[in-house]
Amino acid sequence: MNQKSDIEIARAARKKPIQEVGDRLGIPTEALIPYGHDKAKVGQAFIRSLGERPDGKLILVTAINPTPAGEGKTTTTVGLGDGLNRIGRKAAICIREASLGPCFGMKGGAAGGGHAQVVPMEDMNLHFTGDFHAITSAHNLLAAMIDNHIYWGNALEIDERRVTWRRVLDMNDRALRDIVTSLGGVSNGFPRQTGFDITVASEVMACLCLAADLEDLQERLGNIIVAYRRDRSPIYCRDLKADGAMTVLLKDAMQPNLVQTLENNPAFVHGGPFANIAHGCNSVIATRTALKLADYVVTEAGFGADLGAEKFMNIKCRKAGIAPDAVVIVATIRALKMNGGVARADLGAENVAAVEAGCPNLGRHIANVKSFGVPVVVAINHFTSDTEAEIAAVRAYVEAQGSEAILCTHWADGSAGTEALATRVAEIADSGRAQFAPLYPDEMPLFAKIETIAKRIYHASEVLADQKIRDQLRQWEAAGYGHLPICMAKTQYSFSTDPTRRGAPTGHGVPVREVRLSAGAGFVVVICGEIMTMPGLPRVPSAEEIGLNAAGDVEGLF
Amino acid sequence: MNQKSDIEIARAARKKPIQEVGDRLGIPTEALIPYGHDKAKVGQAFIRSLGERPDGKLILVTAINPTPAGEGKTTTTVGLGDGLNRIGRKAAICIREASLGPCFGMKGGAAGGGHAQVVPMEDMNLHFTGDFHAITSAHNLLAAMIDNHIYWGNALEIDERRVTWRRVLDMNDRALRDIVTSLGGVSNGFPRQTGFDITVASEVMACLCLAADLEDLQERLGNIIVAYRRDRSPIYCRDLKADGAMTVLLKDAMQPNLVQTLENNPAFVHGGPFANIAHGCNSVIATRTALKLADYVVTEAGFGADLGAEKFMNIKCRKAGIAPDAVVIVATIRALKMNGGVARADLGAENVAAVEAGCPNLGRHIANVKSFGVPVVVAINHFTSDTEAEIAAVRAYVEAQGSEAILCTHWADGSAGTEALATRVAEIADSGRAQFAPLYPDEMPLFAKIETIAKRIYHASEVLADQKIRDQLRQWEAAGYGHLPICMAKTQYSFSTDPTRRGAPTGHGVPVREVRLSAGAGFVVVICGEIMTMPGLPRVPSAEEIGLNAAGDVEGLF
Repeated sequence: MNQKSDIEIARAARKKPIQEVGDRLGIPTEALIPYGHDKAKVGQAFIRSLGERPDGKLILVTAINPTPAGEGKTTTTVGLGDGLNRIGRKAAICIREASLGPCFGMKGGAAGGGHAQVVPMEDMNLHFTGDFHAITSAHNLLAAMIDNHIYWGNALEIDERRVTWRRVLDMNDRALRDIVTSLGGVSNGFPRQTGFDITVASEVMACLCLAADLEDLQERLGNIIVAYRRDRSPIYCRDLKADGAMTVLLKDAMQPNLVQTLENNPAFVHGGPFANIAHGCNSVIATRTALKLADYVVTEAGFGADLGAEKFMNIKCRKAGIAPDAVVIVATIRALKMNGGVARADLGAENVAAVEAGCPNLGRHIANVKSFGVPVVVAINHFTSDTEAEIAAVRAYVEAQGSEAILCTHWADGSAGTEALATRVAEIADSGRAQFAPLYPDEMPLFAKIETIAKRIYHASEVLADQKIRDQLRQWEAAGYGHLPICMAKTQYSFSTDPTRRGAPTGHGVPVREVRLSAGAGFVVVICGEIMTMPGLPRVPSAEEIGLNAAGDVEGLF
Repeated sequence: MNQKSDIEIARAARKKPIQEVGDRLGIPTEALIPYGHDKAKVGQAFIRSLGERPDGKLILVTAINPTPAGEGKTTTTVGLGDGLNRIGRKAAICIREASLGPCFGMKGGAAGGGHAQVVPMEDMNLHFTGDFHAITSAHNLLAAMIDNHIYWGNALEIDERRVTWRRVLDMNDRALRDIVTSLGGVSNGFPRQTGFDITVASEVMACLCLAADLEDLQERLGNIIVAYRRDRSPIYCRDLKADGAMTVLLKDAMQPNLVQTLENNPAFVHGGPFANIAHGCNSVIATRTALKLADYVVTEAGFGADLGAEKFMNIKCRKAGIAPDAVVIVATIRALKMNGGVARADLGAENVAAVEAGCPNLGRHIANVKSFGVPVVVAINHFTSDTEAEIAAVRAYVEAQGSEAILCTHWADGSAGTEALATRVAEIADSGRAQFAPLYPDEMPLFAKIETIAKRIYHASEVLADQKIRDQLRQWEAAGYGHLPICMAKTQYSFSTDPTRRGAPTGHGVPVREVRLSAGAGFVVVICGEIMTMPGLPRVPSAEEIGLNAAGDVEGLF
């Protein structure tokens, strides 16, 4: 084969100066703040000036439940963006930034793959434009101000046992999950148990990704609940007067980053909240800016459609006042086979029966997305091991669901491989068929919202939550938080809360382990099962192989 | 008066595009990596291409022992650079980057003041080009890899009680000084006591600031000692295979940053190691690059000349193979009065006797610097409260020491206020009078080096160190570290180790509390007294007043 690797393809890219890429969208050079020659931030004043322009069409790329076989959601997002440009449409891509920490654990983290990538890939997997570092600083400034307040007399009467605000680092470091701070005597404060999460799990990240502008960001930061008093009354970030300084630290991070695909099409890469305890979408400000500048905006959401698309619709679209015109669900023959019960080692052999057995997973995602009033196209992300018969089986299944499945070869062929998909998606988006509505209204009680998601999206029979959790939800309703949407944190591998239950399970219960109020971001997190907010490094971290080669290029990062 | 504040002056600056500033030094546009329109990094390839060019003249700006009255060392560095350009010389400035953490504690942190500032001031006091964040990431990656190694079986047999590598954050956070990590059970590792320092205290910072290039940086990082075994044998960063990935994280941070003064003259702002447990100078790569590009390079060192200039000479110049052609010692009438015993509240009244009583502090610094074979000029940084008689007293004293004192008004007048100083400094630097030699040879035993500094620079009568410390130094000599220079960590406020002993004390002992080996940076740290490597926030942190105003400008940071 002598096939080139992702990194070889990325290094061979003929990047255009970022000003030329911005020019394609009508962004004047003076509105682009350069970070090197191939990255830029879009200036706030220019974004404000876009005000009343009409929006382009919004296309969400989501996927079936992920398997170790891979689906290629980001690759398809990039490929579709390039495909739309290829057929003469003015299209931009909106994706999330990568987290630095995990890059030193397992290989990976590239933005797309093959001939459907966003570049500069190395920068995007390292510090990029510093956004995550700014979030780390803002988050930890607030943490320092909490302990400092307690140290100097605790006028707010913070209960040291009820400080909920932890610290963050963009690093996989299990040793920091659970720590005791302020040891060493009087001058170091009052010892207490706390810990670090990874930066993408920070509520500051979620606030930044949902904020309309810097003013809204400061409002959200001020609303964050950081601790409680002995009487259980909340202490807000605003009470500590930290919101102004945090906003200053985030003023550049709030501006969307512009880069390009291998085919020199514009891509906004901005924000990256966790897809479990947060909503898993790129920033609202990037998506809105792209919608003002392009006729078609292709974006993605984290995990499978049961989590990612559901949160995109119920949290991001609701908050941002935007609506998708079409949804693409990505599937691979390999992943459908795994959903159909095939082990990873046996994926190479043709197995039409297994593909058919896995299709109900896809079918349920199609039906779920349609229930939001949005038309669906299935993209089959082609692997060389796929057979004609397997592909035909998927097509037939999807047609029987009243949708259509289109084979895409963007990994190997770039935009030439997504012409058919792009043409169909543009037709649907232009048709005005979409009649988007969120799944539940703001005024529905919190527990009923959870039940609605569990029953209508997961096809569960019931939500299991003890009295303490139900009481907590009612307390938040009484405190004025009842209008918030729900952010579900459960396994990405199944519609159920059991990661081994592939396919389309029914009749399962959804046990709620814990609920958390993200009052700044503006949602109630419902935790079903174990959620890890600080990863560890593996036995042999990829960091051991990462280094600069003689030419000064980065080796081992991908 | 209606005098403008530093920030008002900085905001009114007419900045030139950074490419124009680089062009003044002959840096081609393609060799500048822009960070916004007013900051850039200088590319590695261009720096390498400068190879055999002759060096310009190097001028060090240092100061008398600092007092709360202020000396204006950075302001004078900037003013002198502008003054040299004003009189037609091609001059560049090299100063340190500011640390983010302290900016949220006390006001300040500006780069210079009045009409002698470097801009963009706000960026420089916030994330700037991300160098410190990169250092934080590299440092903490190594920390995570140490605990991860222990977690997965500890093949290197690290003694968990003897892990010397802590973690860092660029934040004033006393709660993190002393912590216990890895609580919470088996999956989080082995609990142990450790802590965080502020990023500028990281040995990674010292390595970056002393490294000649990326290859040398990786070598130094690999040499860092992170822990010991039960048999006291050292574990190096290299043993954990972390040096390659750390170098990748630092590849952009290693490139010097170019900005400009208010008068559009070039300024390299790069690196910022602590001036106590590290050497307190800007990066070697920035200074060397500036020397290749400019005819005169004005740089500064941390604290007073007893610490800053001594380390500049004995550590930075020795390691980098550079030598100063002239030294400027900055003094103010106010600070001399405080050295002469006047309280801060009484500084406004004329007091020639107090000025004369304080002059011996200046006199000793003059003699010390001359002992390195370098000619000295004193710059009197003018305050409006200074009287003619007070200035005359300083002039007379300095002349009696065989040097000269020149009054400078750069704070009020910019380069017009340093014409006389610049003219005289250029004359001296051009004269070739300097015959620089470090204070002690590499081969001198470590304890004798400490005694040499204590007796010749501090005028102490003896060094007090118990047997354990002397044995430790001998062990390091046996292990091959005897050639390293000494990095003294003592109070900046006095020649002695007692911060209240102003003036020019003699006959004092220098008690050594602890010695540390910075095998990566390449020096032995000798700690005399309490050294704080993680500051705390004050009762009312300045962060409470920091915010964006209606125009989007930062308020409260300065």
